[in-house]
Amino acid sequence: VTREGRHAKRPSEASRISPVRCIDWDGDAVRLIDQTLLPGRTEWVRLATVPELVDAIKRLAVRGAPALGAAGGLGVALAAHRGEDLAQAAALLRGARPTATNLAWGVDRVLAAGGALAEARAIVAEEAANCRAIGERGADLLGARFGDRPLTLLTHCNTGWLACVEWGTALGIVQTLHQRGRVRLVYADETRPLLQGARLTAWELAQAGIEHRVLADSAAASVLASGRVDAVLVGADRIAANGDTANKIGTFPLALAARYAGVPFLVAAPESTVDAAAATGADIPIEHRDGGEVSEYAPAENPAFDVTPHDLITAIVTERRTIAPSEEHP
Amino acid sequence: VTREGRHAKRPSEASRISPVRCIDWDGDAVRLIDQTLLPGRTEWVRLATVPELVDAIKRLAVRGAPALGAAGGLGVALAAHRGEDLAQAAALLRGARPTATNLAWGVDRVLAAGGALAEARAIVAEEAANCRAIGERGADLLGARFGDRPLTLLTHCNTGWLACVEWGTALGIVQTLHQRGRVRLVYADETRPLLQGARLTAWELAQAGIEHRVLADSAAASVLASGRVDAVLVGADRIAANGDTANKIGTFPLALAARYAGVPFLVAAPESTVDAAAATGADIPIEHRDGGEVSEYAPAENPAFDVTPHDLITAIVTERRTIAPSEEHP
Repeated sequence: VTREGRHAKRPSEASRISPVRCIDWDGDAVRLIDQTLLPGRTEWVRLATVPELVDAIKRLAVRGAPALGAAGGLGVALAAHRGEDLAQAAALLRGARPTATNLAWGVDRVLAAGGALAEARAIVAEEAANCRAIGERGADLLGARFGDRPLTLLTHCNTGWLACVEWGTALGIVQTLHQRGRVRLVYADETRPLLQGARLTAWELAQAGIEHRVLADSAAASVLASGRVDAVLVGADRIAANGDTANKIGTFPLALAARYAGVPFLVAAPESTVDAAAATGADIPIEHRDGGEVSEYAPAENPAFDVTPHDLITAIVTERRTIAPSEEHP
Repeated sequence: VTREGRHAKRPSEASRISPVRCIDWDGDAVRLIDQTLLPGRTEWVRLATVPELVDAIKRLAVRGAPALGAAGGLGVALAAHRGEDLAQAAALLRGARPTATNLAWGVDRVLAAGGALAEARAIVAEEAANCRAIGERGADLLGARFGDRPLTLLTHCNTGWLACVEWGTALGIVQTLHQRGRVRLVYADETRPLLQGARLTAWELAQAGIEHRVLADSAAASVLASGRVDAVLVGADRIAANGDTANKIGTFPLALAARYAGVPFLVAAPESTVDAAAATGADIPIEHRDGGEVSEYAPAENPAFDVTPHDLITAIVTERRTIAPSEEHP
């Protein structure tokens, strides 16, 4: 692992570089921003071997379903570049995290292409483009519903460029609405236990100059009930064929609160997150992480994801479809 | 403020002393355990003036509705003991925290008795006794529903002896069930932002030898949906006349998740928590605390309580009634 701490882009510099990709190929290695150090430090790391990349995925230095798709693809290309066994590299990468379908999807796509770097780079470019399309589609959808007035939105975890190569899925919709002058305020759930909302989403929103407030995850329900929020926007790690959606732990109770408050609940994700092999949410494996991430004081259970039943989801927005899963199957 | 750190009871010693009161009169001062230091340090403080006690209440060195009732009563008695103006002391104490009705209730009761120490000590003794009665009533209720098998329970925030002078409300029911050999496992929400669940409830459960697991608050919904939990037990800071219940932030989404999963949702509180002057939850003032408690990184909103609508509550258990608020009014 090569760290580029000394030459790290400061947050204010990063925001001026457009587009910034959170992960990409770099000569003979995979280069990514180490998200575990944000917002305190902006440090890029170069991972020159597959085990280094697998470790970075496991410790969440790179996370977010679309970014994991890119990581999976680039990892197989890295193995090919080094003349290593592709099947073995693919198995290592696939096993790094179980819930996001994109990781295995990216691995399999580049494996099928014989480890071709061009295929991995195509994934990176496509996921970046997909997020722009998701942003436009989602912003149009909310525009059709709410007209021109600036909106108050609520989101969970991080779904911006840090999670998605570029731009973002749910946060990509926020960015697109912001470009249109249509964002009043964004509430960001802090997202325990690893605080991706308080650390990453708030940082991205600050970079973009978007007004925001962090909430304890359990405060979102009463904020929704107060009537101050127009829509909830979240990402997805895996979407089953019936629309049941696995996403960061806390998404399911947020959907319950949105339903109780009558607030639209939108899921934004690329088509690569849809897993046709999973008929329902019951077929999605849920990653359980170390209890120490939750508590230093006591034994803890730490499921990293939950499944939101499709009947609680107003719409799923991908780069090419808008699906209302309570009405039809994707 | 006199600190008794050197003579502090260690957790293992505290458990052997029965009953331990988290707050009581001590010669010429109010003595309480500083809950902000738990579980790392067990330190008792002696507060010899009303402003010292008000500060302890504001910074949550003492918290929990029944304990705050005792603190309010003891505070007025302290002012009387020092020959100070009672009305002024009462105003200072009442204003320390707005949501728990018990604080003002305790203040008013001892004020009406001319600051009599005996009245304040009566509150301490009565709240301790009330919790034993709540424990018995709640355990009987769950016994009637589930029979003799050991139960898996889920709770939020801290409602044990630290919150309630002695024994506890929701956690008092757990303790009574444990005495009857009927507790299998207790899930404790960590309770962001101040981690009363991970710090205080887990510590009390460990003291009592009750098997437990801490959860990120947002993980409770999927644990409930998994079917592993028999009942949810929470306390209350103020109960409106129609049964709407203000309690620690996160109680409302927990009630939504319990309803969705078909799990009984019980509120346990002394009658002193019922505020007949509040017709519904809309009449209950919600304390907003400093955003810095939530995030060091970004601007935050920090409501300390939420209101659970009465239609989501299976039963409210007090020392003398069991109320089903979705069917009748308390």
